Amino acid sequence: MHEFDAARLALPGIRELQPYQAGKPIEEVERELGISNIVKLASNENPLGVSPKVRDALAARISELARYPDANGFYLKQAIAEKFSVSTKQITLGNGSNDVLELLARTFVTPANEVIFAQHAFVVYPLVTKAIGAKPVAVPAKDYGHDLDAMLAAITDKTRMVFIANPNNPTGTFLTKEALEGFIKQVPNHVLVVLDEAYYEYVPQDERAPSLEWIQHYPNLVVSRTFSKAYGLAGLRAGYMVSHPAVADLMNRIRQPFNMNELALTASMAALEDDDFIARSVEVNRDGMAQLIRFCDHHNLPYIPSYGNFLTIETGPDSQALFTKLLHKGVIVRPVAGYELPNHLRVSIGLPQENDAFCNAMAEILNGQ
Amino acid sequence: MHEFDAARLALPGIRELQPYQAGKPIEEVERELGISNIVKLASNENPLGVSPKVRDALAARISELARYPDANGFYLKQAIAEKFSVSTKQITLGNGSNDVLELLARTFVTPANEVIFAQHAFVVYPLVTKAIGAKPVAVPAKDYGHDLDAMLAAITDKTRMVFIANPNNPTGTFLTKEALEGFIKQVPNHVLVVLDEAYYEYVPQDERAPSLEWIQHYPNLVVSRTFSKAYGLAGLRAGYMVSHPAVADLMNRIRQPFNMNELALTASMAALEDDDFIARSVEVNRDGMAQLIRFCDHHNLPYIPSYGNFLTIETGPDSQALFTKLLHKGVIVRPVAGYELPNHLRVSIGLPQENDAFCNAMAEILNGQ
Repeated sequence: MHEFDAARLALPGIRELQPYQAGKPIEEVERELGISNIVKLASNENPLGVSPKVRDALAARISELARYPDANGFYLKQAIAEKFSVSTKQITLGNGSNDVLELLARTFVTPANEVIFAQHAFVVYPLVTKAIGAKPVAVPAKDYGHDLDAMLAAITDKTRMVFIANPNNPTGTFLTKEALEGFIKQVPNHVLVVLDEAYYEYVPQDERAPSLEWIQHYPNLVVSRTFSKAYGLAGLRAGYMVSHPAVADLMNRIRQPFNMNELALTASMAALEDDDFIARSVEVNRDGMAQLIRFCDHHNLPYIPSYGNFLTIETGPDSQALFTKLLHKGVIVRPVAGYELPNHLRVSIGLPQENDAFCNAMAEILNGQ
Repeated sequence: MHEFDAARLALPGIRELQPYQAGKPIEEVERELGISNIVKLASNENPLGVSPKVRDALAARISELARYPDANGFYLKQAIAEKFSVSTKQITLGNGSNDVLELLARTFVTPANEVIFAQHAFVVYPLVTKAIGAKPVAVPAKDYGHDLDAMLAAITDKTRMVFIANPNNPTGTFLTKEALEGFIKQVPNHVLVVLDEAYYEYVPQDERAPSLEWIQHYPNLVVSRTFSKAYGLAGLRAGYMVSHPAVADLMNRIRQPFNMNELALTASMAALEDDDFIARSVEVNRDGMAQLIRFCDHHNLPYIPSYGNFLTIETGPDSQALFTKLLHKGVIVRPVAGYELPNHLRVSIGLPQENDAFCNAMAEILNGQ
């Protein structure tokens, strides 16, 4: 193959991004390490798997895939609108919430703009910002969470978006509705406030912000949600954004018309109707969280209190070595050094026996085994 | 809801795009028109549906969707690389080929650039160009196809990409491998030649360009393929690009890590192995094409000779009215006025009985019924 300096032709912002280091499939890792039945607590997935109702809906649909999906997601938008009391005109569907977050940035952010997010926030925020060539502004965290006053102070004439993840991944920190509304009120309306509620369903009902209602009063507020977490559909890529209709109209002009595939549409519809599954998922998470916290307390391991489906534990400066030891004992967790948390590991909440596997492996390592 | 002038905040190129006019699902159209069993020959889909091998592979996978897909598409890339004798490092996977075409543009094209494509070419080319704010340069067609000399002459210092669809949609026109290589040879290497081979499988074997081999010699050549047509997976969104590894490396830096979902990966793997299904699809297409051509010849309807799975018929200035009449008779075809072909309708090749339905409806209309 000839040499080809493609980078010279690429956008400067993209040249500066690190090439993506793809992990190997679990099957490959198992083969290489000579172990089997790895317990994966690394990606904040729903340990209950797929709801039986979703599975039935998919089974009924797998023969009808040679047709393009409905480009407008007509029925799914109707279902979301009805369930959450919004208009279908406010909804933009995405191939996971990653897709709608990127789409929003591509619609509104130019290389001349700045985009604000918190230290330790989700990697997608700086990534979509840099891919456009805009300036990422990371505001130092307070107690691992968003420092809203500092984020307000960081807004300039060039700011076009502020990302707020609530709860935040990978720290699990949470902003009260009062703090959040107080912040949104003060953001000037040339700035879009992007409230990422990927972990919304894990927040106790009475603590949840009425974020979708807020859009009526704060038209520069947009809210993203996902089917990847409590709904158990990470493999299918389904998410959505709720916004002022004028924002959705613009985003839909550049949305790939078939960005959500037919089975993602089908599964999301079925998942939305299965409230029992969500309730069980939340219950399993609450119990698993208590299980991990008992373990941490017993071993004097500090952790960041979490509103999500994961717990980020302070494991000290040897976190990377600890990660590798856990892997060799058949447990995958998530190192978070890339999030400026080199002394922590993030552990997703699994089923009771999966949490046990982590606790046992960790206890062995702490005992020098 | 408050007024909100979101457009003032959006990119100028996006403000100028027309809002997408989404069609209604067929079920909705049937309900409104009070008809049933509509025959859809509108989207160049595979009338054979999904291969049984794909269906079996999907059925085995639908319980395992709570995990994220493999971000790197490890096994699918291996399968593509092996089947087409390329390196996995040359491959970028996409949520349909629309996704990789857009990704390529976002990686290499800035608002200061120009992007060349032919009149009557696929709508995605101007769309991705305008979404970036770059200048679209549509070169007038010759005999409904690409005028390669004129396209060469349109290249300037600002040109960053030239799109060539072969066969072209919606005209079905085809460039010989000699014409194509002669063109590519002359394109300066600051310009990427994007060869869109969505309809590749329908081209007779001995007429196909050795496009993937060419990449060895012309590193500025990139080739896109799709699983949406002959492979019968339009509903699943699966496509890929083969390029110089340096191009793929850059594209993968901004690719959404989970852009192909788990079931699209699973189905594509199974589809790649099912050569019999492709052979049958091509055969059904060849016979159906002959059926439509006999009809056109019999009724003295001119058509554009096609290498695709569709036939674009010159139906005269009343094409839009004809489209509506066909719809009321239960046959959906595709108006192509948006492609500067106001006197044509594009008819996808269906099963024999579906082609009959079109021919019968058309004959009735021609007879004034």
